[in-house]
Amino acid sequence: MVFLAVFVNGKFCKDPKSVTANDFSYSGLNIARNTTNFLGSNVTTVDVNKIPGLNTLGVSLARLDFAQGGQNPPHIHPRATEILVVTKGKLLVGFVSSNQDNNRLFYKVLKRGDVFVFPIGLIHFQMNVRRTRAVAFAGFGSQNPGTIRIADAVFGSNPSIPQEVLAKAFQLDVKLVRFLHIVFGPPLW
Amino acid sequence: MVFLAVFVNGKFCKDPKSVTANDFSYSGLNIARNTTNFLGSNVTTVDVNKIPGLNTLGVSLARLDFAQGGQNPPHIHPRATEILVVTKGKLLVGFVSSNQDNNRLFYKVLKRGDVFVFPIGLIHFQMNVRRTRAVAFAGFGSQNPGTIRIADAVFGSNPSIPQEVLAKAFQLDVKLVRFLHIVFGPPLW
Amino acid sequence: MVFLAVFVNGKFCKDPKSVTANDFSYSGLNIARNTTNFLGSNVTTVDVNKIPGLNTLGVSLARLDFAQGGQNPPHIHPRATEILVVTKGKLLVGFVSSNQDNNRLFYKVLKRGDVFVFPIGLIHFQMNVRRTRAVAFAGFGSQNPGTIRIADAVFGSNPSIPQEVLAKAFQLDVKLVRFLHIVFGPPLW
Amino acid sequence: MVFLAVFVNGKFCKDPKSVTANDFSYSGLNIARNTTNFLGSNVTTVDVNKIPGLNTLGVSLARLDFAQGGQNPPHIHPRATEILVVTKGKLLVGFVSSNQDNNRLFYKVLKRGDVFVFPIGLIHFQMNVRRTRAVAFAGFGSQNPGTIRIADAVFGSNPSIPQEVLAKAFQLDVKLVRFLHIVFGPPLW
Amino acid sequence: MVFLAVFVNGKFCKDPKSVTANDFSYSGLNIARNTTNFLGSNVTTVDVNKIPGLNTLGVSLARLDFAQGGQNPPHIHPRATEILVVTKGKLLVGFVSSNQDNNRLFYKVLKRGDVFVFPIGLIHFQMNVRRTRAVAFAGFGSQNPGTIRIADAVFGSNPSIPQEVLAKAFQLDVKLVRFLHIVFGPPLW
Amino acid sequence: MVFLAVFVNGKFCKDPKSVTANDFSYSGLNIARNTTNFLGSNVTTVDVNKIPGLNTLGVSLARLDFAQGGQNPPHIHPRATEILVVTKGKLLVGFVSSNQDNNRLFYKVLKRGDVFVFPIGLIHFQMNVRRTRAVAFAGFGSQNPGTIRIADAVFGSNPSIPQEVLAKAFQLDVKLVRFLHIVFGPPLW
Repeated sequence: MVFLAVFVNGKFCKDPKSVTANDFSYSGLNIARNTTNFLGSNVTTVDVNKIPGLNTLGVSLARLDFAQGGQNPPHIHPRATEILVVTKGKLLVGFVSSNQDNNRLFYKVLKRGDVFVFPIGLIHFQMNVRRTRAVAFAGFGSQNPGTIRIADAVFGSNPSIPQEVLAKAFQLDVKLVRFLHIVFGPPLW
Repeated sequence: MVFLAVFVNGKFCKDPKSVTANDFSYSGLNIARNTTNFLGSNVTTVDVNKIPGLNTLGVSLARLDFAQGGQNPPHIHPRATEILVVTKGKLLVGFVSSNQDNNRLFYKVLKRGDVFVFPIGLIHFQMNVRRTRAVAFAGFGSQNPGTIRIADAVFGSNPSIPQEVLAKAFQLDVKLVRFLHIVFGPPLW
Repeated sequence: MVFLAVFVNGKFCKDPKSVTANDFSYSGLNIARNTTNFLGSNVTTVDVNKIPGLNTLGVSLARLDFAQGGQNPPHIHPRATEILVVTKGKLLVGFVSSNQDNNRLFYKVLKRGDVFVFPIGLIHFQMNVRRTRAVAFAGFGSQNPGTIRIADAVFGSNPSIPQEVLAKAFQLDVKLVRFLHIVFGPPLW
Repeated sequence: MVFLAVFVNGKFCKDPKSVTANDFSYSGLNIARNTTNFLGSNVTTVDVNKIPGLNTLGVSLARLDFAQGGQNPPHIHPRATEILVVTKGKLLVGFVSSNQDNNRLFYKVLKRGDVFVFPIGLIHFQMNVRRTRAVAFAGFGSQNPGTIRIADAVFGSNPSIPQEVLAKAFQLDVKLVRFLHIVFGPPLW
Repeated sequence: MVFLAVFVNGKFCKDPKSVTANDFSYSGLNIARNTTNFLGSNVTTVDVNKIPGLNTLGVSLARLDFAQGGQNPPHIHPRATEILVVTKGKLLVGFVSSNQDNNRLFYKVLKRGDVFVFPIGLIHFQMNVRRTRAVAFAGFGSQNPGTIRIADAVFGSNPSIPQEVLAKAFQLDVKLVRFLHIVFGPPLW
Repeated sequence: MVFLAVFVNGKFCKDPKSVTANDFSYSGLNIARNTTNFLGSNVTTVDVNKIPGLNTLGVSLARLDFAQGGQNPPHIHPRATEILVVTKGKLLVGFVSSNQDNNRLFYKVLKRGDVFVFPIGLIHFQMNVRRTRAVAFAGFGSQNPGTIRIADAVFGSNPSIPQEVLAKAFQLDVKLVRFLHIVFGPPLW
């Protein structure tokens, strides 16, 4: 018996002869996702892990759901620029440029039909600023853009970034850093 | 006085200091476009020509409107893969692989929330197969994907592709080729 | 026993130690290919499927043979720009730009020693306009450029693109579309 | 008179004939930089802004100085992977993978001669863990990698990210967010 | 008056409206070039400097002429892989792999119609091994591949590489290095 | 039994779950390498073969040691630009541009802290011009830049490049070429 588990760049391609239309499709982005979490948002990414035919093609898609007052908190996509269109509600969106550009915030309130671009690797966020649900769709320039929520990665990594690093970097009391690690850290069991 | 009109790869970048959030946004994709044309469809592309901040970022977006029975006829994007999501109605979509793969048609009927991928450079189409309007959004892996409608480019180029080329290539009577050139060709004046 | 059939992006590389000069070479492009088909042409592509050493190197080559009056009908290479040189005879060549550029046809009659460029993803053709055979060689910017003959892909896909799509897109009678599908479609058995 | 200020992708190239060896060089990376700031560190980046000849070549370099207890706080390079070698002292370094990988922290204490890789777009940091100064050099896979210090971009952007976004995202009291904005924000005048 | 001389990555694009088919073509590769030089060869490269329309398209072409006994001496293309086809005569061709692969020589005698690949950046040569002229055509994976003849660059640079570097590197007497510099160096005036 | 030996582009990726910080690190670049060879130099490259986590990330690093009077002889990296910083001693460095640019030598004497760039595919060298050891570090824009020492590849390939090619190309007596092949050629056994 042979257990073959190899991992290559990107993904293995299927035998071309066994490929079907289903390898290029995915269903369910019409469904409003559950936003009953402390952020009031939910992002459904359709990348190469869900559509094998995206392999080598360098694009992917996402649906973003926002409860009233919900937000997609500051985060980055390490491997892709994002282009977003609002299809329901009103979103305050923004991204921060780099230190060399004095960390300028580019922001705008987007209403239905508005489009906004978040350049690769820059910290950005979206917040629902209306009393209704909001929905947006986003295209990405990578088949596997990745997502790094800043709060999760900085204060909730596993194991945690040393407290003295975070306390000094963010000018926070060590006790507060410890508290944040409990809030954002991995579940303890 | 100096008239300076230079064209570089992609686009000129603005002076970074004068860039604002508007250089990364666009409005109006909520508006249903006019589909009263013989195809019953209308595609609104939001690329680097409409959002200067897309320059060098390699993505763009489009809204597709379909009247009842409307279609986005067989076409290609020479510089981008497309990933589409249906937000209203039902679309029959498909793309044709290459000669080496025996011109296989990959097709599917997409309902609301369904996603489909059209790989770079392959001929594809979408057709509204319901008695209602249909709407879809699409992400592209290029800031300037380009669009080539097969009928327009083959039978309607300016000047026209020689009739004997088209007659033999498509096994059509020369008279019919001439007729098609009148149908798809540039307006005469 | 183990049947191992995996497909990766591009191709598997051979064990570097077992590679020889033959993995970087191919023979036979001096031979005039059979052009007794309805198009009067024959294209011999030398890509990574024939020269394994081309893997990751992003180039390939082709020989094009034309009978008197023969043509390489309108087609695209979805993944490569082509640069062609005529070594025998006289060819009328052309490519059509995109809808955004009003489907302009760029064309020229090439004689022996003339070079022409067909940009990636654009529809192009070559036709022998002399009473002799014609021969050309072409370089491609991909190890696997692919070829899509428009007539084959549009009217001969397997299964066929729905007749109502083609009839409306090309403004053809449905009967004619059906006839074209018999002409270009896959053999029936 | 004409004032010509255009900005293109990357940089303008000089007239090749006027290029000299100085366009490919830079001096001064032997000098220990001032680390008397609250972080106890200083990064000197040598990119295309300092070496014009790097244009289109896709690499750059940096020297990192650390006071005793100093740190290069959590940050990202949006356009480059970094490979670092310690030439003096001892550094605790780490990066955090993405949400999909459960925000795992990959970390190590590096002594003189140790090398470490920080993949593109991932949050990483370095901290001097010895009672001496520390020095490192780093190579980047971009001529203009950019740097985004998380604390500066999140709590010190100009204008600031809305307080309710940050308060909820980081589960901090709004007063604390306001305080952090004073700490990291742009100077007030 | 304004003297505008700017140099961008690659080349400036023309105003799309003024582009014609001539911007995509070049004539004269049918003409046998003069090979009465000490090497007995002549290479005619058709790159973006000769065909402006090649800009951004990443391919180019060359014709190689060989007198009886002529050679295209050991050289590299710093930015492109080459794929060559022999159309007349018989060529001994070869390339040398890298130090890591023990500088293996991959070589072959090519007759008419034979194809060979020279991977990017590797030292390679072609020699006419028949009593007739030889001709080949080559495709390149860059619009501007560049050519570096080893003898010219090593022994004929301007100014010369220091003699003690060359003497030790090539284990040659300094007098011989000096002689080689006279042979390959720039003309003195 | 199964013998599984596959080689893919770049390298296989490990199962992400089994990756550790050690897959992103390497030790020992603080150690001065043995320079008692006829060139008086030693280059220690830290590429994807030594740090598996570099896979797909496109950078690597090297330490260069020079004895008094030692040199890193004329060589090229076929797949990467190099950016070097001197950390000890004084180096005369240079690269030669291409034939199109008349083989110009760009050179400079670098002291401690000086940085220099060697563009992809160009022949370059470094020589210690002081009475002390010299050390430099270099970043590369490839995870596997490769190294081709000109003397080894030209005069020491295995098998050798035909003597008549080298004799004519370098204008050397065939006896001298034969001697050089003994000097640089592979060990005979």
